[in-house]
Amino acid sequence: MKEKLEQLKTLLARVADLENAAAVLDWDQETYMPEGGVQARADQLSTLQGLAHEYFVDEEVGTLLHDLAAHLDELDYDSDEASLIRVSLRDYEKQVKVPGDLVREISRTSALGTQAWREAREKDDFSLFQPYLEKMVELKIRWAECFKPYDNIYDPLLDDFEPGMTYEQISAVFAELKPPLVELVRAISQKRDAVDDSVLKAHFDKDAQMAFGRAVAEQLGYDLTRGRIDISAHPFTTNFWRGDVRITTRLDENDVVSGLMGTIHEAGHAIYEQNTSPTLYRTGLDRGASMAVHESQSRFYENVIGRSRPFWRHFYPRLQEAFPHFKSLDFEAFYRALNKSEPSLIRVEADEVTYGLHIILRFELENDLFNGRVSVADLPEVWNARMEEYLGLVPPTDREGVLQDIHWSQGLMGYFPDYLLGSVFSVQLWEQMQKEMPGVVEQIEAGQFEDILAWLREKIHRHGRKFTLPEITARVTGGPLRWEPYMDYLRTKYGEIYGL
Amino acid sequence: MKEKLEQLKTLLARVADLENAAAVLDWDQETYMPEGGVQARADQLSTLQGLAHEYFVDEEVGTLLHDLAAHLDELDYDSDEASLIRVSLRDYEKQVKVPGDLVREISRTSALGTQAWREAREKDDFSLFQPYLEKMVELKIRWAECFKPYDNIYDPLLDDFEPGMTYEQISAVFAELKPPLVELVRAISQKRDAVDDSVLKAHFDKDAQMAFGRAVAEQLGYDLTRGRIDISAHPFTTNFWRGDVRITTRLDENDVVSGLMGTIHEAGHAIYEQNTSPTLYRTGLDRGASMAVHESQSRFYENVIGRSRPFWRHFYPRLQEAFPHFKSLDFEAFYRALNKSEPSLIRVEADEVTYGLHIILRFELENDLFNGRVSVADLPEVWNARMEEYLGLVPPTDREGVLQDIHWSQGLMGYFPDYLLGSVFSVQLWEQMQKEMPGVVEQIEAGQFEDILAWLREKIHRHGRKFTLPEITARVTGGPLRWEPYMDYLRTKYGEIYGL
Repeated sequence: MKEKLEQLKTLLARVADLENAAAVLDWDQETYMPEGGVQARADQLSTLQGLAHEYFVDEEVGTLLHDLAAHLDELDYDSDEASLIRVSLRDYEKQVKVPGDLVREISRTSALGTQAWREAREKDDFSLFQPYLEKMVELKIRWAECFKPYDNIYDPLLDDFEPGMTYEQISAVFAELKPPLVELVRAISQKRDAVDDSVLKAHFDKDAQMAFGRAVAEQLGYDLTRGRIDISAHPFTTNFWRGDVRITTRLDENDVVSGLMGTIHEAGHAIYEQNTSPTLYRTGLDRGASMAVHESQSRFYENVIGRSRPFWRHFYPRLQEAFPHFKSLDFEAFYRALNKSEPSLIRVEADEVTYGLHIILRFELENDLFNGRVSVADLPEVWNARMEEYLGLVPPTDREGVLQDIHWSQGLMGYFPDYLLGSVFSVQLWEQMQKEMPGVVEQIEAGQFEDILAWLREKIHRHGRKFTLPEITARVTGGPLRWEPYMDYLRTKYGEIYGL
Repeated sequence: MKEKLEQLKTLLARVADLENAAAVLDWDQETYMPEGGVQARADQLSTLQGLAHEYFVDEEVGTLLHDLAAHLDELDYDSDEASLIRVSLRDYEKQVKVPGDLVREISRTSALGTQAWREAREKDDFSLFQPYLEKMVELKIRWAECFKPYDNIYDPLLDDFEPGMTYEQISAVFAELKPPLVELVRAISQKRDAVDDSVLKAHFDKDAQMAFGRAVAEQLGYDLTRGRIDISAHPFTTNFWRGDVRITTRLDENDVVSGLMGTIHEAGHAIYEQNTSPTLYRTGLDRGASMAVHESQSRFYENVIGRSRPFWRHFYPRLQEAFPHFKSLDFEAFYRALNKSEPSLIRVEADEVTYGLHIILRFELENDLFNGRVSVADLPEVWNARMEEYLGLVPPTDREGVLQDIHWSQGLMGYFPDYLLGSVFSVQLWEQMQKEMPGVVEQIEAGQFEDILAWLREKIHRHGRKFTLPEITARVTGGPLRWEPYMDYLRTKYGEIYGL
């Protein structure tokens, strides 16, 4: 068994190297690649990802995994070895169903589609992106069909980012959440003028913004000797192992807060990746457990901590020092402005309360798209109609509508709901953390984040992909994922701000 | 035959993708990778380069190449197809002799060694680099031994960068060149005070330097929509295909000229790579023919053009505009300062006259190292002793001595002589260009470089790796490589400057 495990690790190490190399190429494409590079980059990524797939679904891997799985009961469930066998077998049995040609074609289409999306977004012209998106949807349908039978063709897409989650399960949670969310949005709308966020707007030097964002991210625990921060059209985090975890951000000259909160969000992802166990290196398990667990970390740092009074009691004097504009703005006015809730067009800039409705829109729209009830050509129109229905706004341009997110261009379909599941979990984590660390609020007020990181590292980070979201929820909180703490948190926080 | 050719192209395309992906990872390591990334990067590069090697030396490739080679006489020698078969077979018969494990170990050692070299150079501590260099020499000896029998173990290393060139051939050229070079250096030394280059020194903003370098590189023909310029410890050019050819440079706050000439040098390399025929994409032939041919391009732009009066008649007013320091310096004083010749420590900053002796030192030292007459541990001492012998200088630190070049850390041994062969060829090209384009000097004076680029593209660039240096020399000049034009050029130019 020991020998077979070593053989398996050698084979998986090669797959991990190819995937990590592809991630470097992706990062480069998003940050520094000149426009002339796009054609060849698509070929390179297609070859790397095609080979990674080919090597992973190799019969030798399958045989080793099945042989080793027969001995799983001899190993501790939590051990690196048992987890490697268990999770790799789950991945294997999924991937083996997808032909290599299809993987390569999705990869190629993603590289070209991302470039097309970027141009379409810049020129506010959906038609430039439409053929690539049509192609991608067609390919993802073919991909999903590899997993027949299913209740809903959307299920395999969802499962890819959140193992075991189905449309039925997620729509059940969202159905519980939607009415109280809509109610809260409505109540806040009636007190719209209670918060003025125009006080945040001024001119802020971009270099100074970057320097401030770096300092905050470092203080939260993002180790910049094992990471870096660059600029890209859509902020993201990527990692090539725990020693090289990079984030990107975008900065707005007229709004320091928007870029800063984006940086904190990505730093939350990066802190997670930097703290997986080194023993998981090159196994394919040395990354976040799932998208929702990942989002629970990024949104914990961005919202639960990053938009709280204790956090800003520490950082606001520093912000005032770095950007004299704030010297004349008192703390409470800043705190309220930072948490202004108002229906808006751009998901990544949406406040905590309205955010969920952006997600539910995408979730329902993807379900309709894959079930043939909406066509790609109709997306801009349907998007706008639903925005009006859910948030009372019609995007004046597609750039602020259907073209705002990079995800679909990269084939990341079925990914959006995890943002909301992650938000829900982030609040449940905060509840648990306060129980186990009574002084945590005072630590945040003192700008001390080491114990928080240690808690998250111990409970979540170090395990990498060993456990699923339901397993993690049970291990950390002793029960299942619960949406009620999330709604309570929103109601309390925004009730106080808006005097509801 | 057509079908076999298609099969071959498909197999070679995958190899090209892997090599191009590895080049992206290399670029990233030299420019933006955080220090924590090094360990995993070594694994990634080793896997990619190992796979590229494995796929290239695959029996299927060998069989196809041998089958196709039997029909070579049915094809035009110059055609893409004939060249692909001919050059790939040459590469194949070399690479098939080297075990994959050795390729992977060299790749790993290169990634780790480059990082160690960087640290050693920064801390001026050879001992930090020594174990990596010892390992690399040991690996390169094992590599060279795969090519037995040979007259000199250094020959396979030389051949790797300059196909068909041997120690005997190169040392014959260098033997002809050395006495007149030494004589010229000596004659100039006696008039040392005739040129004052302290007039070039002042404080120059680095952003302004970068902007000026970009503008000059673009005007020479470097297309920045298919390239970019970054900063690295040791300037280099890399390409992932003709649509993405990147250069790096290093800038000195007290010396705008040094960084600028480095940028022009790398732009010369990049222009070559950007102008290979698009029909050679993914064949492995879409890059420069050899290191010497590459250097002939970079040194043509840097020295033959870039340090000439006609070039600066156009650019000097622009330099004066960008850097007011030069407003009080007259044209002749600038031209003379730019071409000051004086023994110095750093190869990449050496003037045209002394440059050759830096190369001859490295060439002889590598030959001694691989023939066991000098050990790695002794390198700093031997380096310093020979610097004193050839150029009359003893480096005060190893950073300015044996640690100055990145090449050995990357396993680029046998590469240095090509710099001098390239310089020799660059002057032969200039002689030919003047014959065929009588108005070329006036074009340079007018800042027009399109016809020069068109000439080089037609004669050299577009062919990629189709032809060897001797073939190219014969095609372009009608004869063999000749060292005499190079010595004549140096004697005339520097005779005039120094009044010899």
